[in-house]
Amino acid sequence: MTALPNSVTDTLLERFGDRFSQALALRQQHGQGESYHAAALPDAVVFAETTEEVSVIVRLCAAHQVPVIAFGAGTSLEGHLSAVRGGISIDLSRMEKVLRVSAEDLDCTVEAGVTREQLNTWLRDHGLFFPIDPGANATLGGMASTRASGTNAVRYGTMRENVLSLKVVLPSGQIIQTGGRARKSSAGYDLTRLFVGAEGTLGIITEVTLRLHGIPETTAAALCSFPTIDRAIDTAIAVIQLGIPVARMEFMDRGLIAAVNRYAGLSLKVEDTLAFEFHGSPAYTREQIDQVAALAADNGGQDFDWATSPEERNRLWKARHNAFYAVVSQRPNARGWSSDVCVPVSALGECILFTRELLVDCPVPAAILGHVGDGNYHVVFAIDPDNPDELAKVAAINKKMVEKALQLGGTSTGEHGIGTGKIDYLRQEHGDAVDLMQVIKQAIDPLDIMNPGKILPA
Amino acid sequence: MTALPNSVTDTLLERFGDRFSQALALRQQHGQGESYHAAALPDAVVFAETTEEVSVIVRLCAAHQVPVIAFGAGTSLEGHLSAVRGGISIDLSRMEKVLRVSAEDLDCTVEAGVTREQLNTWLRDHGLFFPIDPGANATLGGMASTRASGTNAVRYGTMRENVLSLKVVLPSGQIIQTGGRARKSSAGYDLTRLFVGAEGTLGIITEVTLRLHGIPETTAAALCSFPTIDRAIDTAIAVIQLGIPVARMEFMDRGLIAAVNRYAGLSLKVEDTLAFEFHGSPAYTREQIDQVAALAADNGGQDFDWATSPEERNRLWKARHNAFYAVVSQRPNARGWSSDVCVPVSALGECILFTRELLVDCPVPAAILGHVGDGNYHVVFAIDPDNPDELAKVAAINKKMVEKALQLGGTSTGEHGIGTGKIDYLRQEHGDAVDLMQVIKQAIDPLDIMNPGKILPA
Repeated sequence: MTALPNSVTDTLLERFGDRFSQALALRQQHGQGESYHAAALPDAVVFAETTEEVSVIVRLCAAHQVPVIAFGAGTSLEGHLSAVRGGISIDLSRMEKVLRVSAEDLDCTVEAGVTREQLNTWLRDHGLFFPIDPGANATLGGMASTRASGTNAVRYGTMRENVLSLKVVLPSGQIIQTGGRARKSSAGYDLTRLFVGAEGTLGIITEVTLRLHGIPETTAAALCSFPTIDRAIDTAIAVIQLGIPVARMEFMDRGLIAAVNRYAGLSLKVEDTLAFEFHGSPAYTREQIDQVAALAADNGGQDFDWATSPEERNRLWKARHNAFYAVVSQRPNARGWSSDVCVPVSALGECILFTRELLVDCPVPAAILGHVGDGNYHVVFAIDPDNPDELAKVAAINKKMVEKALQLGGTSTGEHGIGTGKIDYLRQEHGDAVDLMQVIKQAIDPLDIMNPGKILPA
Repeated sequence: MTALPNSVTDTLLERFGDRFSQALALRQQHGQGESYHAAALPDAVVFAETTEEVSVIVRLCAAHQVPVIAFGAGTSLEGHLSAVRGGISIDLSRMEKVLRVSAEDLDCTVEAGVTREQLNTWLRDHGLFFPIDPGANATLGGMASTRASGTNAVRYGTMRENVLSLKVVLPSGQIIQTGGRARKSSAGYDLTRLFVGAEGTLGIITEVTLRLHGIPETTAAALCSFPTIDRAIDTAIAVIQLGIPVARMEFMDRGLIAAVNRYAGLSLKVEDTLAFEFHGSPAYTREQIDQVAALAADNGGQDFDWATSPEERNRLWKARHNAFYAVVSQRPNARGWSSDVCVPVSALGECILFTRELLVDCPVPAAILGHVGDGNYHVVFAIDPDNPDELAKVAAINKKMVEKALQLGGTSTGEHGIGTGKIDYLRQEHGDAVDLMQVIKQAIDPLDIMNPGKILPA
């Protein structure tokens, strides 16, 4: 049943008791997450509760060359969790303590298993929030590991900009602290940014120190529909170019709006749509809204409706957050395949129109949506994972979209990560720089036990 | 006269002609820059004009294990340029082409030898600017290499946040492109951030792709003097905590104001002072000014004078930019020693007051100034580099200040870099994480030819 050496199994069982498991259902859940990629099961799951426990497990695995894969909330989309060479899935979801919040310094330290919703609930009484919002209620450790971003990144940046410091268990089991609490530093190599986005292939993040922001005095949201997709995108580009600091600027194509209406019982106008959020003082929020409304009107935008009440805003953003599930629910027993690319904003219109053309021949329900202020968008496909013919067609569409994005100077993934799903594009995107990534991987993890088979092509 | 193998000298001479030099004066200039650290002379200087030329030189040096040190404008402050093991100084100042500006995408690509003033002159007609402003007219390659920041970082971030992509010559001579032009990406290890701040110890940056910003509709500046240093700092902390997006917020202690008055013929009030700059629409700038003025008044701030005319603003910021020279000019034939630390903003008052106490016993003219919105400040000492007793006393003060900053959760350098000057603090600051930095250095530069003796303790 397992490829684990008995000595590993015995040691873990003795040390972790019922926090060590080889139950099939648990291994299945830990080998897939929300990814459309086929599951590959770890040999066992261990629920770690401290950094020291993670270190003990990693040390043991290193001694026996057993792979280790960190597991947070299981919301990854590109096969990051699949145990392609078996090994131990270290579940960090019980490491869920908020260790420290400093309202004065606008920062906090949390254990890696704290989710962003948990954190924001905790922060509310301090008048603070953590802006990075990838939609799913991911853990902060997982978000750091995939360099996540989401709807608020256009204003507040991504995990790259909002992680100050990390506690990391290295492949040897050694525990280090990267970076520090100062807002900036020129002291040595930027190890923090090396682990942010490394998808657990260089070490396991167990604590995250984050930048926080004050809850804005005023928050307003607005929806605007456009006669054509390119006029919606032109509006988004103009907003960025004028430097209007929108907090969110999301594109939803008409197909998605229809799906969202059905899924959430809404009656949004079925048109290509931009959804905005504005943060600031009352006067400044009003100024931003007026500027954006004028730009939208110039591009034929209609029904620029804005909402300041929390209820209306929540309804709107709930619809956006449920987009993935809304698309998937269009088809019984479907699974979601969400791909993402990101291009320089000037190329966004061309890339999205190209993608929409591709979707004309798509055999499954699909919709385009995205964080267009960053040049980042997604296509969500509702697939039948047991239909290889259909999967091949979707894969071909995805490939064409990714290659178009790369041609336009973009990236194969704006925020979902490489995992196993985008591994074939890494060299196309980064050329010989991939050799350097491999040098770094080999130096830090010479036994290749840290989430093997991810990011780097063989 | 030289430790270079004849074959290296001959090959370089043949290939580069009079762009290869072993003249003493040139070697002296290239072995020190503006640093107070004693010069250590390279064996030769080569003026490179293309990335390929840099690659040729590095390949040759690798074959003969000759050190290579990149040289830009020579404005580094912590001994980065000192050729502690001899070798070749590659002068990149002739690589000064702006290769591409995209007003649509708010980005540009420049050769490493372009200075920030050159770039901003070029950008003005596009309505754009590059905000990172360390004071000195450094090159963009040098600024990336030391992870520079400066006065605007409180609003716009540092080089860490504003470099999108780099062209780098690796220690093997191989040329790679890191990152890409998309605003964000989750595709692979963040090599860009690895080279930003690596001080030329992992490779030589030859091209830099940068984020740009639109020139703000309105720019206003203000000065405000305070009865005590801690009330000035309290005001700065309150501004940050309220999230007021000041573009600059600089502290100058009363000693510095006196020096600046003498140096620049100004008549600023000799008090502990904050200088602000505000960017935005007219209404929003006004709103920020009113908020900051109210906070300053709460802390006993007086004479909150604001200036919107470019002449007045330029005069003010010129005074700030000349602070280093103003302090040094207080003493004939002195050299400047500018140290910097950065702490969480809540600890800033304590750290600055501690530093002021230390300066009571300082044997040379000294002043405190800094980018207090980031928790970063400098002490500038006017030293006689030939007086070892005096140098020892200044070094002792510097040591106490750095150790205090580290105790308070800060960093030994906010923006000047480690070079040779802060090398003894790296392990104190980063602990075992330094081992990992050494693993990375060893893997990427196994012959240790890239700016050896910098950043990493032996």
